[in-house]
Amino acid sequence: MGLFTKDIKSMDDLFVHQLQDVYYAEKRIVGALPDMIQKATTPQLRQAFDSHLAETRNQVRRLEQVFQMCGTQASSVKCPAIDGIVEEADEVAGEVADKSVLDAALIAAGQSVEHYEIARYGTLIAWAKALGREDCAQILNETLEEEKAADEKLTAIARQGVNQAAA
Amino acid sequence: MGLFTKDIKSMDDLFVHQLQDVYYAEKRIVGALPDMIQKATTPQLRQAFDSHLAETRNQVRRLEQVFQMCGTQASSVKCPAIDGIVEEADEVAGEVADKSVLDAALIAAGQSVEHYEIARYGTLIAWAKALGREDCAQILNETLEEEKAADEKLTAIARQGVNQAAA
Repeated sequence: MGLFTKDIKSMDDLFVHQLQDVYYAEKRIVGALPDMIQKATTPQLRQAFDSHLAETRNQVRRLEQVFQMCGTQASSVKCPAIDGIVEEADEVAGEVADKSVLDAALIAAGQSVEHYEIARYGTLIAWAKALGREDCAQILNETLEEEKAADEKLTAIARQGVNQAAA
Repeated sequence: MGLFTKDIKSMDDLFVHQLQDVYYAEKRIVGALPDMIQKATTPQLRQAFDSHLAETRNQVRRLEQVFQMCGTQASSVKCPAIDGIVEEADEVAGEVADKSVLDAALIAAGQSVEHYEIARYGTLIAWAKALGREDCAQILNETLEEEKAADEKLTAIARQGVNQAAA
């Protein structure tokens, strides 16, 4: 969100503001994932981040579509939450020495990003429905399902051996 | 996490570091909830935040117990992620004019906090199990279940009328 001002007087305003927040977040994630792909050592993990990067680029386009459906130009507001989450992820990517421990830490960082998005898209969908915008809710739900699947894939990779190898 | 240094060489180190991160986060949430309680107008929402404050204080004590079980003194590392999430929540609490819109925004803020914690405790539990610390995993799982329940309660409050009233 980042810039909640007294300009936010209606649910329509709040919905657009949250769209701007998530738009900022998705673009920040597009910027952060290449570094995570490069740092990951388990091929499965690298592949998971790589395919999520392609998904995230498509999620940015979906948000642009929803802005358009709301008659608003796509724009961002600075979102301190995703900035903090990505800052932590960057630190992990750069600062853990052991490769298998680093993979475990990268999975944790990725899952905190996914959960942030799961929360935000869940909210956006609920608000779209309350505003009678089932059409927007449907598009946003496609992204929500991708975020949940990405989170589950990371859990599976951790269980399949990354955590055991690190321990 | 915040201070991932080259000191993190093993999964044990990473686990304790994540504990320190979540310990910081829980204490930050204890500090942030009273303001959210005060700002909430729907009695159900105020009550939900109020009972979660009591739960969160207990979650802090559970973390102290896990630190002790790991033979380590409880301590914090600065966590930019929760700082950013709470910063957004503070802005919402202070800056939205309309009361029913504010309640919707407070629920969104609360759910982003819950999802951050769901991600972190999920990771901690997986790591505790990988390290053979089923005893720590069990204690952390009590908190994870509370966080999931708190998230579901907020969803229910939103559906029971806050979003409709705001729209």
